[in-house]
Amino acid sequence: MAESLPSEHKAVRLHPNGERRIRVETIPAPRIEHPDDAIVKVKLAGLCGSDLHAYRGHEVIDQVITTGHEFVGEVVALGASFAPEATAKNRPPLYATLKVGDKVVSPFTSSCAECNFCRLGFTSRCANSLLFGSVLLEGGQAQYVRVPRAGGTLFPIPPHTSIPHAPTAEQLTSLADPSLLLLADILPTGVFAAIQTLQHPKVLPVITGRPFPLGSMSVLPAGEIIAQRIQSGGVGVELLEEDKILNLAIVGLGPVGICALISLLDLLALNKTSYNITAIDLLAARRAKASAIYRSLPDSARGSGHFAVCGTDEAEATVAAQTKGTNGEGIPGCHAVLEIVGNNSALTLAHTLLRPFGALISVGVHQTPPVPFIGRALYAKNTALEFGRCPVRAVFPLAAELLLRRQDVFGKVGGDEALVDRVVGIDDAEEAFTRFEKGEWGKVIFDPWK
Amino acid sequence: MAESLPSEHKAVRLHPNGERRIRVETIPAPRIEHPDDAIVKVKLAGLCGSDLHAYRGHEVIDQVITTGHEFVGEVVALGASFAPEATAKNRPPLYATLKVGDKVVSPFTSSCAECNFCRLGFTSRCANSLLFGSVLLEGGQAQYVRVPRAGGTLFPIPPHTSIPHAPTAEQLTSLADPSLLLLADILPTGVFAAIQTLQHPKVLPVITGRPFPLGSMSVLPAGEIIAQRIQSGGVGVELLEEDKILNLAIVGLGPVGICALISLLDLLALNKTSYNITAIDLLAARRAKASAIYRSLPDSARGSGHFAVCGTDEAEATVAAQTKGTNGEGIPGCHAVLEIVGNNSALTLAHTLLRPFGALISVGVHQTPPVPFIGRALYAKNTALEFGRCPVRAVFPLAAELLLRRQDVFGKVGGDEALVDRVVGIDDAEEAFTRFEKGEWGKVIFDPWK
Repeated sequence: MAESLPSEHKAVRLHPNGERRIRVETIPAPRIEHPDDAIVKVKLAGLCGSDLHAYRGHEVIDQVITTGHEFVGEVVALGASFAPEATAKNRPPLYATLKVGDKVVSPFTSSCAECNFCRLGFTSRCANSLLFGSVLLEGGQAQYVRVPRAGGTLFPIPPHTSIPHAPTAEQLTSLADPSLLLLADILPTGVFAAIQTLQHPKVLPVITGRPFPLGSMSVLPAGEIIAQRIQSGGVGVELLEEDKILNLAIVGLGPVGICALISLLDLLALNKTSYNITAIDLLAARRAKASAIYRSLPDSARGSGHFAVCGTDEAEATVAAQTKGTNGEGIPGCHAVLEIVGNNSALTLAHTLLRPFGALISVGVHQTPPVPFIGRALYAKNTALEFGRCPVRAVFPLAAELLLRRQDVFGKVGGDEALVDRVVGIDDAEEAFTRFEKGEWGKVIFDPWK
Repeated sequence: MAESLPSEHKAVRLHPNGERRIRVETIPAPRIEHPDDAIVKVKLAGLCGSDLHAYRGHEVIDQVITTGHEFVGEVVALGASFAPEATAKNRPPLYATLKVGDKVVSPFTSSCAECNFCRLGFTSRCANSLLFGSVLLEGGQAQYVRVPRAGGTLFPIPPHTSIPHAPTAEQLTSLADPSLLLLADILPTGVFAAIQTLQHPKVLPVITGRPFPLGSMSVLPAGEIIAQRIQSGGVGVELLEEDKILNLAIVGLGPVGICALISLLDLLALNKTSYNITAIDLLAARRAKASAIYRSLPDSARGSGHFAVCGTDEAEATVAAQTKGTNGEGIPGCHAVLEIVGNNSALTLAHTLLRPFGALISVGVHQTPPVPFIGRALYAKNTALEFGRCPVRAVFPLAAELLLRRQDVFGKVGGDEALVDRVVGIDDAEEAFTRFEKGEWGKVIFDPWK
């Protein structure tokens, strides 16, 4: 089924050592290696904060890799599993419907849609998952990329399976490629942080007005019986209106942090939950962008609450001022803190900003150091922690729907209120890594054909 | 309102240093110190695993303390807040109704029922909370004990406020004191571990059959709108029956571990959730008791599943055998592991036994060492962690209801299938601490008048 593919292509390569670790090189183009593979001709590929882990040496690589895990493109070759006679075997529907010429976005990890983890929605830990741009799978900052388990992994634009009620399917075709690219990683990861926050049992009482442990008991099959047994939660007092204001902080205002902020605000507005949000970053440019984007949002997209932006040094004082009186006399702190950096300074700050029975929601990519928590402190604060990689496949519908509705932010390229800073040619990759790493450039997208 | 109180009483005292750190001494009896105080004449006081933290020196005390945080007794004196003219001020109803002569159980921490944390059900982190048997508040292993914020803290037996539908209120009066004592700490703490497990967003998909991120979204005010946006969770495949079997492990089979096991089994049976449970302890005597109690349960109390008991050395192999094939080829591990020990060996083992997107539910009391996790491992497993102290007040109705229904276990004193090993006189406290610490005696209860 493969159309004629070139023998070579351009790719951004990260070398394990040497002076110029990032180089744009011409190397053999990818080929179908397995019947489930697709080859995608890349239209745009993103540069992501987590690309910097290997670039900075925090994550050690032992061989040269093709970088990048965000891409949008066009299917140019398909393996034998996509032949009509193979599709009868009760496999994911995309094996029957994906065609050469289809436009696709890929999650930043492959997933099979055929294992226990995928069925449960935990697609980022699919039993057959691989990360693009790693030593195990070449990345998307290239002219072509091989996608394993493509019938489980790829999102066609528009989606082939209809999503009833959701206005996403056809409308997605109207979006520009830089906007669609956000679906590969950063927007779903931000949404993942937001939904883990709002549905956490330690956060739900504030939103629902029903005290712990009622939380999410009602979704259990025997929820009604259990709720009868719990009744008012044992304390027998009603929540006051002031108890229903959610105190949140976001540590890290890179592109994922801003996606998390927008998703949080959207869900809080939808649930009519009042909030105090403190948004924190070391870099002034990132703080300015977060402020500008917050101010640019219509009321319907940001609901009702207070929003403050500050540096890490001012974070404790700002949270204390924002949350003063809401937790009780002299108790500052947030019901949840979203950690979107991926190092121990961020984890330490996030835990400091939590109030007792708070939830630390980490979507940062962490490395080898031990986490900076002592057991007694976690016990004493009744801390909850969530770690890990976004299951993009599972979060895709929510993220796509938000992408469409918030084109006032996600549709822009360049300028103070845009998440995407610039689109550059692939030959500028070396400069782009350098400037992105220093914070001089925001979110950069590569056009491999420019 | 105080009846005549003795000037002295007997109490179990832990000294910071010396040969015989535990001594039964005659000391001044407690007095009303604040208008919200009650003085309780102790009928029975429990010896709990967490008493051992200070006894073993893992928790350093700088002064002699009266030990014990579990007690059942009778109100013998009340502060001025309990006078009729004081009760009009919109305070917790118990200030209006509690009387000298009432029988009461106390949670192991005091709580006010008047702060933001109490209203949200987070009573163990009440802004005014104190732990019985600490340097800040004398404990219950004594003839008398002072209870601060008594109108928020105490549970009268029967409860003064009716609990509609629940069969608890009057029936609780029929229970023997050793059974009621379980409500002070260990049974609610076990129930707390169980409900944190079952309502965790990473566990809910297995129980409800709805993939992540649907989890508990439906309890949000805008749950229906969000559910429409998410639809099938993005993967678009149905769960198989085998995906709905919950793999669990319990690390630590002391009295709290057994309470957690019984509560888990009860909730799993109620929800008709099939399970594989691996119950783990270093000590053969504890393993034997867990097995005997499991076998003694009627089918209605343990639902449908497989149960294995093993030592810590065999834990990995046993979990692998129990969960073989349920997570996918070659992926052992549990959806959740309950950690009920309170040290780093237990945390390390618990994390090892988790599968990706698993939840580590810790109710152990942890001390000063850093927790034994590296960031990359938590990220790579998408681990969730819950730490901290049970909010007994909030969990009380569920625990009381279970206590009544499971009198076949919780009503027994002594023997293979009993949670409570023995009731001894307070003068035997020194021997009791020694034997309990060595695991020679199980759960011990002191009678301060024997």
